[in-house]
Amino acid sequence: MANEITIVTEAELRKAIPLDLAAIGVVESAFGALASGRVVMPPILSMEIPDAHGEVDVKTAWLPGFDGFAIKVSPGFFDNPKLGLPSLNGLMILFSAKTGLVQALFLDNGYLTDIRTAAAGAVAAKWLTPARIETAGIMGTGVQARLQAEAAHLVRPFRRVLVWGRDRAKAEACAADIGAALGIEARADGDPARLVAESQLVVTTTPAREPILKAEWLHPGLHIT
Amino acid sequence: MANEITIVTEAELRKAIPLDLAAIGVVESAFGALASGRVVMPPILSMEIPDAHGEVDVKTAWLPGFDGFAIKVSPGFFDNPKLGLPSLNGLMILFSAKTGLVQALFLDNGYLTDIRTAAAGAVAAKWLTPARIETAGIMGTGVQARLQAEAAHLVRPFRRVLVWGRDRAKAEACAADIGAALGIEARADGDPARLVAESQLVVTTTPAREPILKAEWLHPGLHIT
Repeated sequence: MANEITIVTEAELRKAIPLDLAAIGVVESAFGALASGRVVMPPILSMEIPDAHGEVDVKTAWLPGFDGFAIKVSPGFFDNPKLGLPSLNGLMILFSAKTGLVQALFLDNGYLTDIRTAAAGAVAAKWLTPARIETAGIMGTGVQARLQAEAAHLVRPFRRVLVWGRDRAKAEACAADIGAALGIEARADGDPARLVAESQLVVTTTPAREPILKAEWLHPGLHIT
Repeated sequence: MANEITIVTEAELRKAIPLDLAAIGVVESAFGALASGRVVMPPILSMEIPDAHGEVDVKTAWLPGFDGFAIKVSPGFFDNPKLGLPSLNGLMILFSAKTGLVQALFLDNGYLTDIRTAAAGAVAAKWLTPARIETAGIMGTGVQARLQAEAAHLVRPFRRVLVWGRDRAKAEACAADIGAALGIEARADGDPARLVAESQLVVTTTPAREPILKAEWLHPGLHIT
């Protein structure tokens, strides 16, 4: 059977799909379609591999009218950093919605998920935050801390960013990265209550299982993603 | 990240994985492991694409002790034959069960599923049929009709095969194929009741939604897969 399958690597995807207003617009449209109720979206398939502190999630959906649909396979193996490997990997598979034939494999190692997640934060900021943001606060110091700041800045170009994390050195590094990427004032703040007090937009980007942001810190004119 | 992914095509898989006693043994072991209760096997992810009379199923499982696990993605688009395409396609993805990294892509277009399904029939025949089968009856004329006959013959080398199908010409062609593959007497039989009466093993391999085999045709010493 002559079925051409396009294979796209992470490096190629990073060049082709930047985090920009176009990506945010695509995610915004998808939320709109989902809200219309016509999207077909089955429950997630999720499997645990307890021996390796791992799990794998498979997600898909189909938007009527689209020629294709993707299936995303996301493994999370949380002991990987001890081996010098990232926790999250995975790939996406693009199928024809007319014939079910595989059209492309996106070997993205989670990059497309990173972009989608940050873009979703920007959609929330676009629709839910005050029109003018002076200061954005980022809680967390990982990939999403950086990407959420960049995405939110595209829709609400704030003047200053504050970063809090449990590890002060990581918070400093994250703030430096965001400041350089956006060309704005950026610094780490060791006091999360003060970070929230000074921000109009706060993005939480940690896997914390205990609260890191307290209800009593909330103030009028604050949006939290 | 230097992660080598092996990509294996359908043609390569057809050479590497024949339907033989080894394949049947693997499927038999998997059933044994499943019966032990230690296998991790989440519910199937299933999505319908009603506009194209299509669906896609995603299946996975992990056997403790194994270094890897596979995720199978099986689209079924039942109008494809009108386009000259097979209804079933898909691929399997092999992951490390230690790190979650993708190790291999098996672009099998459903071939591995065909082999697994036939091997499962042979496991049933090995454990549940009388020790001696003179005649096997196959109801259906598609890929599984042929493969189920071949697989069952590996564990119960019968002397004769009868094939029934709604389309007499397809039944004749299927019987000819099975006879040639196994080197035994093989013919189409237009009367399903007679086929069942003369067989000790009957395999039903159709997508029929109405009964094609009636309870009153059953007789002592008959196994049905």
